[in-house]
Amino acid sequence: MPIDVAPSIIERIAPVDACAGERTRAYLDTLTKPPGSLGRLETLAIQLSAITGGQTPNVTPASVLVFAADHGVAEEGVSAFPQAVTAQMVANFASGGAAINVFARQIGARIDVVDVGVVAPLTVAGVTHAKVRPGTANMVLENAMQGAEAHAAINAGVAAVERASHAGARCIIVGEMGIANTTASSAMLAVLTATPVAQVVGAGTGIDSAQQAHKVAVIERAIQARQADPNDPLDVLVKVGGLEIAAMTGAYLASAAHRLPAIVDGFIATVAALVACRLCPAVRGYLVFGHRSEEPGHATALDALDAKPLLALGMRLGEGSGAALAFPLLQAAVAMLNEMATFADAGVSDSARQ
Amino acid sequence: MPIDVAPSIIERIAPVDACAGERTRAYLDTLTKPPGSLGRLETLAIQLSAITGGQTPNVTPASVLVFAADHGVAEEGVSAFPQAVTAQMVANFASGGAAINVFARQIGARIDVVDVGVVAPLTVAGVTHAKVRPGTANMVLENAMQGAEAHAAINAGVAAVERASHAGARCIIVGEMGIANTTASSAMLAVLTATPVAQVVGAGTGIDSAQQAHKVAVIERAIQARQADPNDPLDVLVKVGGLEIAAMTGAYLASAAHRLPAIVDGFIATVAALVACRLCPAVRGYLVFGHRSEEPGHATALDALDAKPLLALGMRLGEGSGAALAFPLLQAAVAMLNEMATFADAGVSDSARQ
Repeated sequence: MPIDVAPSIIERIAPVDACAGERTRAYLDTLTKPPGSLGRLETLAIQLSAITGGQTPNVTPASVLVFAADHGVAEEGVSAFPQAVTAQMVANFASGGAAINVFARQIGARIDVVDVGVVAPLTVAGVTHAKVRPGTANMVLENAMQGAEAHAAINAGVAAVERASHAGARCIIVGEMGIANTTASSAMLAVLTATPVAQVVGAGTGIDSAQQAHKVAVIERAIQARQADPNDPLDVLVKVGGLEIAAMTGAYLASAAHRLPAIVDGFIATVAALVACRLCPAVRGYLVFGHRSEEPGHATALDALDAKPLLALGMRLGEGSGAALAFPLLQAAVAMLNEMATFADAGVSDSARQ
Repeated sequence: MPIDVAPSIIERIAPVDACAGERTRAYLDTLTKPPGSLGRLETLAIQLSAITGGQTPNVTPASVLVFAADHGVAEEGVSAFPQAVTAQMVANFASGGAAINVFARQIGARIDVVDVGVVAPLTVAGVTHAKVRPGTANMVLENAMQGAEAHAAINAGVAAVERASHAGARCIIVGEMGIANTTASSAMLAVLTATPVAQVVGAGTGIDSAQQAHKVAVIERAIQARQADPNDPLDVLVKVGGLEIAAMTGAYLASAAHRLPAIVDGFIATVAALVACRLCPAVRGYLVFGHRSEEPGHATALDALDAKPLLALGMRLGEGSGAALAFPLLQAAVAMLNEMATFADAGVSDSARQ
């Protein structure tokens, strides 16, 4: 089922500028520190130069985009929380009380909460309305969504990045909220990477081992019933995916098209990033991975993208929280590059490099 | 050789308030997130509550203290850089061009550069003069310092924390600069933890494997010649330690005495923290570990303190750089505690906790 999704955005994606990255690599060895001694901060500075194409990248301000949607499969009893919590948490985002609000304020980031498919009608102020449909269908019984709906949800993600870029954002942080979305993500990942379901399913927001076995069985039934084509990421998204996951995919595509670094959050975000990279491999160069989630499927998703997150703090919240916490490291990498003295400037002996 | 070092500061150290920590642990489960889903950020919030004794800890502003000194053992050719680099880097700190300056600015921290034993006379502005002696003696040939000198250097560290506290600091970040100080730290750690020297010695600022074998041999000769008592941390400091390491030990003692969290940097800092905890085990509760260094001895030192750093970015610079990069995580932990909505406040269903 090939769908003509967002071809215009994919056509606008160019690979990162490897030459700019290499110029930064050489420059880093002139700074007053033993070569390589700032580790991954140096790798990050090189990547950010390659993304922006310049020697003095800037990542501030960041913009946080949180996409929310519901999942029909929640009726199978796969989550520790009732479906109503999706809408309740969106209201919490809108009033500034959730973890992602706290972390966004800390890094001075605007937050755009986008309803791409919450079941309940949301009338609270501070939510961008881009509802494609009120939740997906139960993927055990039918396709989660139609092709045109996936297209619309992807475009909602593209539009959010374009609003952020227009408002001056220099870095995109993408998060999600959707009760049962680890179920959809696990199904997508199992299909896309041909991994046994039991290997990618974890506790989600906090289910016990019996509930976890039930979750595995539900996902296996859905995969068996839907027969998504593992070589067609959009088919996987349509049959066993989610509306907020599609929007996140669109957001990563648009970040790359706008040459903006995007910080990928945890498990669900990484599955959406995998879809984006399958659609357009050049997207990978624009992605920075923020946090290694406790959710076991995250390791599988990261491996598929050859990605190593900056942080590993044992978190499993989503919302973009792990990505937001990693943002100061991007700022530090940029500041190192832009502000540190060179050996020559500072009159420091450079003996290690004779 | 028992030395009466800083008894007044040790007498002022009380254990952290475990009850305050437990009250915070319970409160965290009322916030709008699945219980435990913020991982180590929750552990950090609990620890910071225990340190300050209150439910609304504050860690801002931080103050960065960088202690600099030279090492007589540098004449054995153990470092990739000449001894002159210590003074050159102190001048770089004073003029704001080093990595730690960049990271301190990023977190809004004052930086106090303290000369406790640089060989060269330093006349640059912006350096606190507390020189105990111009570098240690070569520990292969004689004790690195005298007991009274260790005492004076420890007190220089105490004084720096007291200046910072007086200026309003709510968190202490301790760093160092001293060519050959991984040699002194490796010797101290090998003695204190009865670990083979070869196991704790690494590349330092960038020596090759032949130079590394030489470094191991030099340290083994020094340990053999000095015969420090592993059960007397001050004896170890005097015989195979360093002036900046002694000052860092004093800084950790004083942070605990002032009930201020101290972020421990990499290998050298952790060895100094180990000395502080051996002198007064209650210090351990006040320490947060910022970054896991690439230096192999760091794992040994961390194990001895049952410590797990927040970051692991492959860095090996020192200066307090890894501790400064971790500071935003302490701010995030505090903000989570102080700003997140509860389930009740936000009207979010709390089903996972029925």
